[in-house]
Amino acid sequence: MLKEKIYRVVNKGAHGSKYNLVFDYGIMLLIILNVVALAIGTVPEIRIKAGGFLRIFELISIIIFTIEYLMRLYVADLTHPSSSQVKSIFKFVFSGYGMIDLVAILPFYLPFLIAVDMRFLRLFRLMRFFRLMKLNRYNSSLNLIWSVVKEKRSELAVTGFVSVLILLISSFLMYDVESKIQPDKFPNIFATFWWAIATLTTVGYGDVYPITAVGKVISSLIAILGIGIVALPTGIISAGFMNKIDKKEASEDACPHCGKEINRKL
Amino acid sequence: MLKEKIYRVVNKGAHGSKYNLVFDYGIMLLIILNVVALAIGTVPEIRIKAGGFLRIFELISIIIFTIEYLMRLYVADLTHPSSSQVKSIFKFVFSGYGMIDLVAILPFYLPFLIAVDMRFLRLFRLMRFFRLMKLNRYNSSLNLIWSVVKEKRSELAVTGFVSVLILLISSFLMYDVESKIQPDKFPNIFATFWWAIATLTTVGYGDVYPITAVGKVISSLIAILGIGIVALPTGIISAGFMNKIDKKEASEDACPHCGKEINRKL
Amino acid sequence: MLKEKIYRVVNKGAHGSKYNLVFDYGIMLLIILNVVALAIGTVPEIRIKAGGFLRIFELISIIIFTIEYLMRLYVADLTHPSSSQVKSIFKFVFSGYGMIDLVAILPFYLPFLIAVDMRFLRLFRLMRFFRLMKLNRYNSSLNLIWSVVKEKRSELAVTGFVSVLILLISSFLMYDVESKIQPDKFPNIFATFWWAIATLTTVGYGDVYPITAVGKVISSLIAILGIGIVALPTGIISAGFMNKIDKKEASEDACPHCGKEINRKL
Amino acid sequence: MLKEKIYRVVNKGAHGSKYNLVFDYGIMLLIILNVVALAIGTVPEIRIKAGGFLRIFELISIIIFTIEYLMRLYVADLTHPSSSQVKSIFKFVFSGYGMIDLVAILPFYLPFLIAVDMRFLRLFRLMRFFRLMKLNRYNSSLNLIWSVVKEKRSELAVTGFVSVLILLISSFLMYDVESKIQPDKFPNIFATFWWAIATLTTVGYGDVYPITAVGKVISSLIAILGIGIVALPTGIISAGFMNKIDKKEASEDACPHCGKEINRKL
Repeated sequence: MLKEKIYRVVNKGAHGSKYNLVFDYGIMLLIILNVVALAIGTVPEIRIKAGGFLRIFELISIIIFTIEYLMRLYVADLTHPSSSQVKSIFKFVFSGYGMIDLVAILPFYLPFLIAVDMRFLRLFRLMRFFRLMKLNRYNSSLNLIWSVVKEKRSELAVTGFVSVLILLISSFLMYDVESKIQPDKFPNIFATFWWAIATLTTVGYGDVYPITAVGKVISSLIAILGIGIVALPTGIISAGFMNKIDKKEASEDACPHCGKEINRKL
Repeated sequence: MLKEKIYRVVNKGAHGSKYNLVFDYGIMLLIILNVVALAIGTVPEIRIKAGGFLRIFELISIIIFTIEYLMRLYVADLTHPSSSQVKSIFKFVFSGYGMIDLVAILPFYLPFLIAVDMRFLRLFRLMRFFRLMKLNRYNSSLNLIWSVVKEKRSELAVTGFVSVLILLISSFLMYDVESKIQPDKFPNIFATFWWAIATLTTVGYGDVYPITAVGKVISSLIAILGIGIVALPTGIISAGFMNKIDKKEASEDACPHCGKEINRKL
Repeated sequence: MLKEKIYRVVNKGAHGSKYNLVFDYGIMLLIILNVVALAIGTVPEIRIKAGGFLRIFELISIIIFTIEYLMRLYVADLTHPSSSQVKSIFKFVFSGYGMIDLVAILPFYLPFLIAVDMRFLRLFRLMRFFRLMKLNRYNSSLNLIWSVVKEKRSELAVTGFVSVLILLISSFLMYDVESKIQPDKFPNIFATFWWAIATLTTVGYGDVYPITAVGKVISSLIAILGIGIVALPTGIISAGFMNKIDKKEASEDACPHCGKEINRKL
Repeated sequence: MLKEKIYRVVNKGAHGSKYNLVFDYGIMLLIILNVVALAIGTVPEIRIKAGGFLRIFELISIIIFTIEYLMRLYVADLTHPSSSQVKSIFKFVFSGYGMIDLVAILPFYLPFLIAVDMRFLRLFRLMRFFRLMKLNRYNSSLNLIWSVVKEKRSELAVTGFVSVLILLISSFLMYDVESKIQPDKFPNIFATFWWAIATLTTVGYGDVYPITAVGKVISSLIAILGIGIVALPTGIISAGFMNKIDKKEASEDACPHCGKEINRKL
């Protein structure tokens, strides 16, 4: 049956056929080439010389992506089983990956429907890149990282809140200290906030920096606190990863008293 | 009873009522808006155009914060129970959150009492932001982070002391090496110390950097040591978090089959 | 027997003789001196004054390295035992260390055979430095680090993929925001990508940085995400190291009183 | 007895008397003031105005430190017991803290004996700061940190070796790529090495950075590897700290089979 065959081609899984592998890597390659095309399209020399070629490549890509999307719509009742075909299509269209697939082709058809900003379109086209995430659909690593971050979100949020407090207080202090001496570099709190973030994250571009003694003392304190702001989330996340490993191991433990297996999820 | 009702409104807790939620989020929003108002008030264009509006907003805020403070004083005998009403009020006024609440409204009333520096006032007004910390009053995460930092304060202090030693020695060395060649960039030890901190914390603004060969060797060593200065506290804090989790789990360990405690880790 | 003696000299191991130690440290010293010679050879003043000396040193080095290589070829049947002498030689020549040894002397003989780029040659000569890795041939630490990185390659790859996504999206956003205002600093996506990497890794050279408000907001977000990009791999690797230690200890756990195995952790 | 009393004053320990506390904090304060005096002595304005005062303060300090040193010599047979008084003095003089104490007063007496460079003297005087380390003589935290670093020295050394390899290869590559375009910024390998360290440690002063496309690709790779260079030692040290805590706890464990305490030192 045709539907069965298409399903096997477009859907990765335990029943992954050779055709699916070829299809998957082909689509992946096309996505990467599309992102590369988007990137080199911003270089004026290339846009002048190879602009036509890039547009043709874009057109071919969109045709392939559209065909793929239609194929996925066609087999929606197999990938998203439900009481009716329409419901299955809806389920697919509004699923996470379904949305990404749509967003990847929408920017091409949108100008035919409504007037849109070209820059806005480019960002939408970039969304195709998210499709590479599909590679990780069965990837336990992404889930592990995500579960650690989610489990520790409360501690990470507190660290974030304390960081914002430090940034705010140092910005206001710095503004009082430096705005008179360097009114062009520290004209208002927002400019000072920009300096504070560059210092706390230890980026230190060097476009703004204090020149007064008091300003340098404040800046030094922020830079030192920056180490703590790196150390805290790292420590929290390290503990989170360790904990996950411990739990996994613990679930294979046995009680030393009665010898029975302890299959608990701590 | 009125006092009971006010108590339920101003006090978050297990008995948190709907009114308390509305009240809490309202105050929170007002605090954030106040900080935003303080920030945009430093932009000259906005101060000229919307200065009047900002002053009115400040006035309304202060009235609300004052009413809130009076309400808290009124129910002090419920939140801080003691032998007498006066003692309860004292207890509240000198409690951590009581002080923050006072500091949040004081800057407005202070100029009526004594002559004060306006810049000093702005910083005081910023203290309101600390009130957002109340959100975390029952937040176990903040307590966890704080307990880890407190538990490891001795190790962190040693790391800090070693860092100061490295900073001092490198500053004196650098001063001897670079002050002759770049007298404007390394005029004295304090300027060199500023460079040392920017290097050790890997901020690296780029306003001061060595140009002599020896200076660059010293700078490279400091930068490499900087990695250690990040690695040590991070390692200490990671171990601290791990330890907390281990202890918590160990104290809850019991075999689900025979019910006996499994004292595996502690 | 001569072959036996040469084998003992050139091969480190449990049967390491005094001659092997002298030989090993001699070769090591020569490698380091060669790298130093390569480095000081790039300083024009030194090249003019001591160019002849450097060339003679290079010649002597190449003779020693060639003799060493011939010795290793001679004892190949002892170090890489196989059915025939020729097979052993092949085995040695195409082994990891055999290739490095060859690459270390090849650049000298290559110009006699084919026309080669001089810069290409220098990089090849630098390959000698890899030979110092031999020092670690029996080093369990390198294996430990490598096994941790290998074990966690999946999690590290996911972190890397997410980082590339962040870099790409921020680059495209930044290009739209800044390319109009600073066309010389953000001329195309590649220039913006360079900025994005410098920001996410918190290097922050300061050659390119945003000047628009929106650009600074994006830059701040990237810098803050940069902390996460440091925290995630560090946490993953910390957990990996801990796990290795736990496993090693668990496999050695036995009660010293009753002799029974204590399978507490695995 | 006088010797007993002096011993109690100069020696901290379990038998620490009130006098010892006063004496210890007095010496500590004097050391800090000396370092501050050294620092402010480098500011020309202060040196002109308060130069005389600083010299008198230096003189008084040296007298106090000399008296302290003589006192320690006098009680050497109590602090460093041995078969004879002379041996005890020798033992003290050549002990770690004895050397630091000597180095702290030596720079003053040295010019009376031999001709010395003044800059050399300042660095020696700075050695006094090391004496603050005595505060940690009984500090278990310093010992803990030190033991972790020592235990993991092999892994840290491997990380260091790999870092040097990365630095070397990237320096040679960068020299070939950028020295033609920016001969003033990348004149030789040493200048390139300086850039490589600033990039790998993510300091990024911004005094040297690549401008060619290939150079930027290399620089990006180094910056990304820089995250690994931070992650690896941090992970190693985290695991080290965790291990120490585990061991301490393990030594308080009991065997689950026979119930006896397992006082093993893993």
